Amino acid sequence: MRFTTFLKDDRARLGVVDGDQVIDLNAAQPQVPDSLRAALAAGVDLAAAAKAAIASDAPRQPLASLKLAPLVPEPGKIICLGLNYFDHAKEGGREKPDYPWFFFRGATSLVAHGAPGILPKVSGKFDYEAELALVIGKRVPRHVSQDDAPGHVFGYTCFNDMSVRDYQKRTPQWTIGKNFDGTGGFGPVLVTADELPPAATGLKIQGRLNGEVMQDANTTDMIWGVAETISLLSDVLTLEPGDVIVMGTPAGVGQARTPPVWMKAGDTYEVEIERIGTLVNKIVAEG
Amino acid sequence: MRFTTFLKDDRARLGVVDGDQVIDLNAAQPQVPDSLRAALAAGVDLAAAAKAAIASDAPRQPLASLKLAPLVPEPGKIICLGLNYFDHAKEGGREKPDYPWFFFRGATSLVAHGAPGILPKVSGKFDYEAELALVIGKRVPRHVSQDDAPGHVFGYTCFNDMSVRDYQKRTPQWTIGKNFDGTGGFGPVLVTADELPPAATGLKIQGRLNGEVMQDANTTDMIWGVAETISLLSDVLTLEPGDVIVMGTPAGVGQARTPPVWMKAGDTYEVEIERIGTLVNKIVAEG
Repeated sequence: MRFTTFLKDDRARLGVVDGDQVIDLNAAQPQVPDSLRAALAAGVDLAAAAKAAIASDAPRQPLASLKLAPLVPEPGKIICLGLNYFDHAKEGGREKPDYPWFFFRGATSLVAHGAPGILPKVSGKFDYEAELALVIGKRVPRHVSQDDAPGHVFGYTCFNDMSVRDYQKRTPQWTIGKNFDGTGGFGPVLVTADELPPAATGLKIQGRLNGEVMQDANTTDMIWGVAETISLLSDVLTLEPGDVIVMGTPAGVGQARTPPVWMKAGDTYEVEIERIGTLVNKIVAEG
Repeated sequence: MRFTTFLKDDRARLGVVDGDQVIDLNAAQPQVPDSLRAALAAGVDLAAAAKAAIASDAPRQPLASLKLAPLVPEPGKIICLGLNYFDHAKEGGREKPDYPWFFFRGATSLVAHGAPGILPKVSGKFDYEAELALVIGKRVPRHVSQDDAPGHVFGYTCFNDMSVRDYQKRTPQWTIGKNFDGTGGFGPVLVTADELPPAATGLKIQGRLNGEVMQDANTTDMIWGVAETISLLSDVLTLEPGDVIVMGTPAGVGQARTPPVWMKAGDTYEVEIERIGTLVNKIVAEG
């Protein structure tokens, strides 16, 4: 099953994807809340509701015609991993880390598929990072085992963890360089976990700048996979429905190139993940 | 004016404080949403509503009798500063930093005044940090000046930025050590900005472990004050109503002592800030 979040009268609404068409799920199945986070938190059987909506004669709109919102517009937490592909750690001159470098994003940093990534006024060092992201479906018990962890994932999507490198490195804490408004590309569709290999392993992931391949890897190359990451996080905190985990980027980022490659206004970055889809964000200068 | 957030039938509700009594603001003034974040986002005139509630014969309950919730139970963002008192940077062997060390907390880390701080199963290196926190009242324009910044603060409260030091230092990213469930003491009451000195400067801040003074400073000693912090953040992101900024801790933390002092089950840590109040959390081992 595939879901998306689209804007209608400037409000974000959960949609189920039927081929290249989208059904407003709450309009078709009024028992379903109109946001993915709320529907997951309420424990709604989204697969059944989506199936019923698809089987119905509910109105459809072409996905390509819709203005999307970030897939989960206001997650409780957005937890990101740094250095989760060894080749990317290496290109930054680092050893294989022995624990994930976690940092958080805030919802104000998110941007939908098709919406602009915002090149900040205060920096020209604007980089891309193609990543796999997941959305938690069910509250994860603390200290969950790696075996039980992936069962709490609702689905997977694409993320562009756009990074303002000079701010990221102003102090040892990366957080601020990862939280500029309009720098967390997130979408376009969520593919439920049952439609993908276990823990979303073995998927090709590619990042393209203006059509040129800059990052090309496979989710199998992640140092910490989905199961281990969720299990490690559960030693620390409660993962709740709608929480997002962004799984880190492979080699090929702009800052590690000679000379460095920075995104500028007018550029487009695409993140494509096999069997999930392609996230596209055009870069626009902050107004 | 003073506000708090209390639990009624396990749901958090906004209260206005009248002396040592609390009025359920939404019950007394039904046009006011029942959460502080929602009320601020809706642009409700909380001062007027609180004044009307206090002038009315609305039912009151003693503050001391209530079970509180974190002051803003689900903020959009919780932005924390590290090393914002020079004496604390120094005790950690660090120079005066030239930009704030920002990291984020998630809402699952928050804990109310009077609720237990949770000593994690996976670590014994559990430390305290007395801090001033503020709640944003009005959306802050990007690139706001230091002069205009403090006008966007709704009010101030106490925070205990309880830290799991070994996790904080497993990698250069502190985030994970600052996000254990039940480690962000937050309350008990929010004092509106108009009742305090401009930008909450000149307030004594003290942290006490089992009654013994461990931290003793003044908010004037902060390297980045409230105005500068908000202005710097506004270069990066949009601060929204209900967002929380936690302003960093002065010297005296447990890890910097010889021998180090770690909080254990049964300990109590109090954070007192002049003209604001005292936040009390007893430490309980994770169940």
